[in-house]
Amino acid sequence: MEPITFSERSLSEYTAKQLIDFIITQKLQPGDRLPNETELGKALGVGRSTVREAAKILISRNIIRIERGKGTFVSQNPGVPDDPLGFQFVQNKSQLILELLQLRSIIEPSLAELAAQNATEEEIERLRFFEGKLEEAYKKHMDHSEFDVSFHTNVAKCSHNSVVDLIYPVLIKTVPMTVEYTQGVLVPETIDDHVAIIDAIARHDGDTARSVMDTHIKRNIQFIKTANIE
Amino acid sequence: MEPITFSERSLSEYTAKQLIDFIITQKLQPGDRLPNETELGKALGVGRSTVREAAKILISRNIIRIERGKGTFVSQNPGVPDDPLGFQFVQNKSQLILELLQLRSIIEPSLAELAAQNATEEEIERLRFFEGKLEEAYKKHMDHSEFDVSFHTNVAKCSHNSVVDLIYPVLIKTVPMTVEYTQGVLVPETIDDHVAIIDAIARHDGDTARSVMDTHIKRNIQFIKTANIE
Repeated sequence: MEPITFSERSLSEYTAKQLIDFIITQKLQPGDRLPNETELGKALGVGRSTVREAAKILISRNIIRIERGKGTFVSQNPGVPDDPLGFQFVQNKSQLILELLQLRSIIEPSLAELAAQNATEEEIERLRFFEGKLEEAYKKHMDHSEFDVSFHTNVAKCSHNSVVDLIYPVLIKTVPMTVEYTQGVLVPETIDDHVAIIDAIARHDGDTARSVMDTHIKRNIQFIKTANIE
Repeated sequence: MEPITFSERSLSEYTAKQLIDFIITQKLQPGDRLPNETELGKALGVGRSTVREAAKILISRNIIRIERGKGTFVSQNPGVPDDPLGFQFVQNKSQLILELLQLRSIIEPSLAELAAQNATEEEIERLRFFEGKLEEAYKKHMDHSEFDVSFHTNVAKCSHNSVVDLIYPVLIKTVPMTVEYTQGVLVPETIDDHVAIIDAIARHDGDTARSVMDTHIKRNIQFIKTANIE
């Protein structure tokens, strides 16, 4: 592939950086509307077509998004792409699942403990709601992985740590893959574990929340390791 | 800002996705060279200028990079941007530092324990080397934060978990910010802690490695919390 010339790259990329600085210094929040191309061009001292090129770069990085007929807005989690750690490029997917589960086994017991310390009544209600959905899906022989993800994501949210909010969706990508590996065999244990974790969080019992979460994730790791060996 | 027309967006973005699929299905590894524009255009059934547009999108996502006069290559950590969780858009930076340190206090004691189990002789030598550099910088009243980052990053590497390798550089972004906050006051304690952690890793004593790392990170959290209150 022939290299893109320096001037061509630098102009749009320089403007993209300026546009990022504009968003930060103007303290634009997720969902806030950006000025139009002409106004931005004036503010950044470049032409409309350069603003447009820079905007394309920011769109591809999930910093801004376009709503047709409405304008251009700051994204919900600006700068966080769909796959921020490039898992799609990892070839050994079964190793990836085990390594993600190992990291989850390190993090999630502590998150469950923090959840028991910090969860509000409303958050506990939400946990019970998604758990009900999981049980319903299981009884109807439907795919439950979405509700499994919701449960773990909501426990993580109860930790009230906003970095966890950003990082957790990356780690939880294992769940649909794990469910595929375990063929749903562990669902009854999963439901029992989840209910025990919610109960512990509800009575603000951090030690129990931590220890049940630990058992829960390690059981999945053990199951997958055994399945891989066979 | 006027929306970019659908056809314009979709053609280059569709081709960008095709190009990602090409990299994955051809099992191209970091550092591998991509075919030239003409060949890629043929493989993907589009013109050279569309390939070029798609390549720009992949460059902006750090999936490929151009080396002038040499060609286009798969990036070292494809798809992982500089700031994958968008920390630059977080306004409350002192809260961000504390939340990152809270997450590090959850993860790093376990990583130190894994390091004690898995580190090779060569890796332990590397830990001692960077620790020597940190002490040297401190004695010469130079900025030591780079070597502090090296120490923690290398302990994380010793865990031999490739997801940790991807995620850790994101968490360690606190170090230069923390050093700024603590004004280097904690350096003597930092050096003692680091040496104790390396010694524990070297004699494969996971319990001690875990507990010293725990103390080390919590001391920083306590210091910053106290400094913020004052």
